[in-house]
Amino acid sequence: MRDVAVVGAGMTRFAKYPDRGLKDLSREAVTAALDAAGMDKRDLEVAIVGNAAAGLTTGQECIRAQVVLREMGIDKIPMVNAENACASSSTAFQLGWVYVASGLYDTALVLGVEKMYTTDKAKALATFSAGVDVEQLRGIMEQLKPPSDTSAAGESGAGKSRSLFMDIYAAGARAHMTKYGTTKEHYARIAVKNHNNGSLNPHAQYRERYSLEEILASPMVADPLTRLMCAPIGDGAAAAVLVSAEKAAQYTTRPVWVRASSLASGSDTRAEDGGITERAAHRAFEMAGMTPRDIDVMEVHDASAPAELAIYEELGLCGLGECGRLVDEGATEIGGRIPVNTSGGLLAKGHPVGATGVAQLYEIFLQLRGEAGERQVKGARVGLTENGGGMVRGEAAATTVHILAV
Amino acid sequence: MRDVAVVGAGMTRFAKYPDRGLKDLSREAVTAALDAAGMDKRDLEVAIVGNAAAGLTTGQECIRAQVVLREMGIDKIPMVNAENACASSSTAFQLGWVYVASGLYDTALVLGVEKMYTTDKAKALATFSAGVDVEQLRGIMEQLKPPSDTSAAGESGAGKSRSLFMDIYAAGARAHMTKYGTTKEHYARIAVKNHNNGSLNPHAQYRERYSLEEILASPMVADPLTRLMCAPIGDGAAAAVLVSAEKAAQYTTRPVWVRASSLASGSDTRAEDGGITERAAHRAFEMAGMTPRDIDVMEVHDASAPAELAIYEELGLCGLGECGRLVDEGATEIGGRIPVNTSGGLLAKGHPVGATGVAQLYEIFLQLRGEAGERQVKGARVGLTENGGGMVRGEAAATTVHILAV
Repeated sequence: MRDVAVVGAGMTRFAKYPDRGLKDLSREAVTAALDAAGMDKRDLEVAIVGNAAAGLTTGQECIRAQVVLREMGIDKIPMVNAENACASSSTAFQLGWVYVASGLYDTALVLGVEKMYTTDKAKALATFSAGVDVEQLRGIMEQLKPPSDTSAAGESGAGKSRSLFMDIYAAGARAHMTKYGTTKEHYARIAVKNHNNGSLNPHAQYRERYSLEEILASPMVADPLTRLMCAPIGDGAAAAVLVSAEKAAQYTTRPVWVRASSLASGSDTRAEDGGITERAAHRAFEMAGMTPRDIDVMEVHDASAPAELAIYEELGLCGLGECGRLVDEGATEIGGRIPVNTSGGLLAKGHPVGATGVAQLYEIFLQLRGEAGERQVKGARVGLTENGGGMVRGEAAATTVHILAV
Repeated sequence: MRDVAVVGAGMTRFAKYPDRGLKDLSREAVTAALDAAGMDKRDLEVAIVGNAAAGLTTGQECIRAQVVLREMGIDKIPMVNAENACASSSTAFQLGWVYVASGLYDTALVLGVEKMYTTDKAKALATFSAGVDVEQLRGIMEQLKPPSDTSAAGESGAGKSRSLFMDIYAAGARAHMTKYGTTKEHYARIAVKNHNNGSLNPHAQYRERYSLEEILASPMVADPLTRLMCAPIGDGAAAAVLVSAEKAAQYTTRPVWVRASSLASGSDTRAEDGGITERAAHRAFEMAGMTPRDIDVMEVHDASAPAELAIYEELGLCGLGECGRLVDEGATEIGGRIPVNTSGGLLAKGHPVGATGVAQLYEIFLQLRGEAGERQVKGARVGLTENGGGMVRGEAAATTVHILAV
């Protein structure tokens, strides 16, 4: 397979955009990516678009790529619409990489775009539920009921309109607390860190900083998760331009190389060969010929604060049950040993699901080019993204791990 | 890029299955494909699933592959959900081909599956409308109104519940009739041919034969299209197993090679470089080093009878405006110079949209292995499939052309 470089990337700010549609958001992100690459849109040879919720929120199914790209004059080239729930656009990124690595095309556009915000909150939340087996939805919700559903949020009805996934994350967090002594404060410290990082990122949906006490005191969503420990609902787009090694020099003197692209699916948490994230990470490290110690900066799928901690263990940043210690040491803060979610992560940057995967890659692209401004990790040369999506039998249905390097 | 072979393929009969779901249909098609390949499901390394309408008809979005394959014990391997309207599963086939051709994986499962039949006919028809730019839907429908909408079908209200696409096809047919003297009888003869072929195919949704008079006398859908000139609504699944050349001999002594896989998008009908089908075909013939004369049998996207005739010209089987002559000569009947839609095509075999692309490839797989029974084309060694999907500004949003050979 041929070497492939990211030569440009861009994104919109993530936010609630009541007046902007998929086309408008896509145009901004794609234009930014092409500008960063110094590439004319006529030089694109294939486009892959990741989106999860347009069918539910806008009614647009089937040909989302063609509809959004035609509008900005990108036409005639092959287009593929890819879906993998919250991992839709990192899946699209893998397809772009395979198309170029295979030799079939020299340049590929990858776009993630999502409109989740609607005044109908039930509709927005339904976009998350569509990421599970819909035939099993009722059973899953029953199983996940917290032991005591008498929290203020539950009573007030807020609990009823929360995302199904937050119940899943809360159940996982409670189990980890019981087994390993992880505390609510550990989760709150992740939220403090990511909101701090988000305050430094002009593309972040939320740029406020919060104290540990404020995080813990924010409304309860599903015990132990408070609202500030959960990713918000929002809209946005992110795009990247991939080219073959032969073409890279035409566009930039600072290519960011794709050293590994790994996609896994499936269930069986903690089975013999590990859960889905372990499997995806194992393959990625093997492809790159690297270990977790080689990574300088990473973006991971913190749809909730406890998810980020679980991922520390799954990626091998620490041993099983040791994620709390990593938090105590401040290892994953900017300036720490291995900064995680410098962009603010899903918690603060936001999580328009189909756009999230490429937005993570955009952050690593900036970090490796030394263009991350106030949140720059000094000397970062290797970065990793982990993006999970959907749920089948208690585990993510799709997880991608990408390793980029300069 | 490495050579890739199809070593197994299978499908359900296309039909209205009120009591069968996506999982059940998928299981039958995948099992048939694996059995034909003599492959254990544990040897699959990646799976790509094409589906267009599950979000609208069953509520399942985002992770359709994982949901249907987990049920039959296919788990943990990377899975991608691909969409391109009616070309969803041939797009999935291209992705499977690229994954294997690139060297990333040695074996790939490609599945197309669709549930369109519901007792709510408006919902079933909405699955077609989702294949256009939904923001332009009203304008498109207005433009397409036949000059006289006072046909019996229109008056009875049947016209109102027809698919938007049939209006588009009817408008194209009327234009062709005016410009080139093509007649209703030409269209009707295509329907006679394809229903004849379908009567020989145990997997076809409709197996009745009809006379020219019966086709012309069936209820008017959109002038000049009668109901028997339009693909029906139905359910079904089709699957194929792709392997690298190195692995092919492990599974079969009769591999069917993928000689070309081409995907195009975009509008600009009859532009300088031709419409979308011309562009997709041009690239496929170039990849295969072949011309239309090299093809022994083909399956094309006859969602309506006039569509098949237009495709004759777009694929270069005849010159512009000459498709009627090809029909007069019987050239595309079984036994003719270049048999088209030996399976019965979309008209008789059926058109569960996301399953159609792989079902076409299944027919060519059978023909090239000499396993097509009563509808076998003698000595067929090279076959082609053409599968179109969606609509942007008056032209298919995605068209694939594949060339297979033994």
